[in-house]
Amino acid sequence: MSERYDIAIVGSGPAGLSAALNAKIRNKKFIIFGNNNLSNKLAKAPKVNNYLGFYGLTGEGIKERFQEHIKAMDIAITEERINNIYAMGEYFALMANDKTFEAKSIILATGIEYTKPIEGEEKYLGRGVGYCATCDAPLYKGKTVTIIGYNKEAEAEANYVSELAGEIYYIPMYKDKYNLRDNIKLIEDKPKEIIGENKVNKLILKDSEILTDAVFILKDSISPGQLVPGLKIEENHIAVDRLMKTNLPGCFAAGDCVGRPYQYIKSAGEGNIAALSAVQYLDSINKNK
Amino acid sequence: MSERYDIAIVGSGPAGLSAALNAKIRNKKFIIFGNNNLSNKLAKAPKVNNYLGFYGLTGEGIKERFQEHIKAMDIAITEERINNIYAMGEYFALMANDKTFEAKSIILATGIEYTKPIEGEEKYLGRGVGYCATCDAPLYKGKTVTIIGYNKEAEAEANYVSELAGEIYYIPMYKDKYNLRDNIKLIEDKPKEIIGENKVNKLILKDSEILTDAVFILKDSISPGQLVPGLKIEENHIAVDRLMKTNLPGCFAAGDCVGRPYQYIKSAGEGNIAALSAVQYLDSINKNK
Ligand SMILES: Cc1cc2nc3c(=O)[nH]c(=O)nc-3n(C[C@H](O)[C@H](O)[C@H](O)COP(=O)(O)OP(=O)(O)OC[C@H]3O[C@@H](n4cnc5c(N)ncnc54)[C@H](O)[C@@H]3O)c2cc1C
Ligand SMILES: Cc1cc2nc3c(=O)[nH]c(=O)nc-3n(C[C@H](O)[C@H](O)[C@H](O)COP(=O)(O)OP(=O)(O)OC[C@H]3O[C@@H](n4cnc5c(N)ncnc54)[C@H](O)[C@@H]3O)c2cc1C
Repeated sequence: MSERYDIAIVGSGPAGLSAALNAKIRNKKFIIFGNNNLSNKLAKAPKVNNYLGFYGLTGEGIKERFQEHIKAMDIAITEERINNIYAMGEYFALMANDKTFEAKSIILATGIEYTKPIEGEEKYLGRGVGYCATCDAPLYKGKTVTIIGYNKEAEAEANYVSELAGEIYYIPMYKDKYNLRDNIKLIEDKPKEIIGENKVNKLILKDSEILTDAVFILKDSISPGQLVPGLKIEENHIAVDRLMKTNLPGCFAAGDCVGRPYQYIKSAGEGNIAALSAVQYLDSINKNK
Repeated sequence: MSERYDIAIVGSGPAGLSAALNAKIRNKKFIIFGNNNLSNKLAKAPKVNNYLGFYGLTGEGIKERFQEHIKAMDIAITEERINNIYAMGEYFALMANDKTFEAKSIILATGIEYTKPIEGEEKYLGRGVGYCATCDAPLYKGKTVTIIGYNKEAEAEANYVSELAGEIYYIPMYKDKYNLRDNIKLIEDKPKEIIGENKVNKLILKDSEILTDAVFILKDSISPGQLVPGLKIEENHIAVDRLMKTNLPGCFAAGDCVGRPYQYIKSAGEGNIAALSAVQYLDSINKNK
């Protein structure tokens, strides 16, 4: 049996990090999933003046302060993408690409996706379009799979899928050195439209077209309703009360994923509340034993 | 007619300061009331590890970062205590000791009082016990008035009242050099119980007793229900929704005064939300004109 955490935090932006500080201070056994670059959104901001205590820093500068803070408190980020979370009654099961984690409570701090859907994306969702390539890869054994990656972490997912798929295309939506297996075909072009009949059969790009059986779109965050089946969503955000409780007992949420305004210190403040609420929840379930 | 602000922020702790940053960035005409020491609670914390971005600082250290931040953005705190706020329909009237201010919207960020009431305080409230000496001073012309001050700002209030009262006692609940008029009697002793019959007539201290007609208890914050008549209070806190709206249109609130957990970054996050909600409110009333 895998070890069971008190708290699993999903997301390493300001909301997840702030939650982690408080889980640590409260001596809970916790794990935080995300990446050591913390958050693409954090790094992108040209100048931030509304995070009380820091004036005139870039997002990158603030990111470094956050990294120093968690390092000083001995908090390490587990670089795994969580694709699905199931409420099992006594605990939550968190599914990463090839691992499962267990936690008594969870804090969702996954941020929100600003990018507009590609034409046809919503129409063909579940009929060839998906957001988790590794989850659905077995369905496309020997077939042609296209992966549209919005960040470097998508490369690992493409590499994993390339073991199963017949043919595989990778379309990066960012510029970098790509770390891809030899059997993956890199296409540097802008996706325009997904088309098909009952199911996807083609992706149209600005300068080219690909015949494909599946299109996986790997963004910074998965929609929370897909991540956690049964989670209550209101107007595209996770529904929470003022203590950051969701409709699922033991499941808390914070940051952009729970609603506007999309802001650093709002997210960090909510992460703080969510962690303290999770601590209270853990106390209450221990008392009832 | 006094000039009318877009936003008046009451309180200079993390919630009020964070609101001020955002009011400034959004180019609103705003005023922030409080004191240049920012917040007694801020200064008191021995070590703060859960404000994301700062590790191992004292409350005093964090206070200095906040002071640098607002200074760099040219935000000045107006050192006035707001004793009453009235919703006038088109605007709010904010009453300071001898001035009135007007604002189209307000953000309450007054913190919360941790100190326990003195025995008899609640029993005699309105019957000799009060929280705003300058407001009620005219009632005690020529009488004996006792002021229990929890912070230095209370000294100015005592000095003001001393012009009217017959006899006046000042009991500081802090240690400092006291800046009091000659006709004020300083008593350095701990208040134990307020007693009387229909009205207050005596204050019992640890080592002494005072015959007095009134006892004013001047704490860091006034209860919000007394500050703003008509404001909806739930379990001792200002009731707000997730956008920090209170029941009064144009009145927002943030920080300890809206509820637990009592934390810096939670307060700052809510100040950010409250300011952006106030901006949205201002836009909506301008549009309807
Ligand atoms: C260009 C730009 C400028 C901005 N400027 C400002 C500004 O000046 N002031 C301000 O206050 N705000 C600003 N913002 C907004 C701010 O960036 C966001 O509000 C903030 O980053 C939200 O924090 P968060 O923790 O909720 O989520 P995010 O910062 O989005 O972090 C979420 C993290 O979780 C990871 N993650 C998501 N899902 C999973 C999963 N299933 N498994 C593992 N990890 C996962 C993501 O990869 C990401 O790293 C700006 C945003 C942008 C894009
Ligand atoms: C000893 C101690 C240690 C703490 N340690 C931590 C910690 O480690 N981490 C953490 O996150 N939190 C800590 N806290 C809690 C933290 O101090 C509070 O949560 C935070 O200060 C609340 O911010 P605020 O802006 O809501 O109110 P406050 O900080 O209370 O500020 C309110 C300000 O408004 C002023 N004000 C009130 N009414 C009026 C009025 N009518 N007119 C004008 N001005 C007014 C007050 O004088 C005060 O200056 C600690 C608190 C204490 C007492």
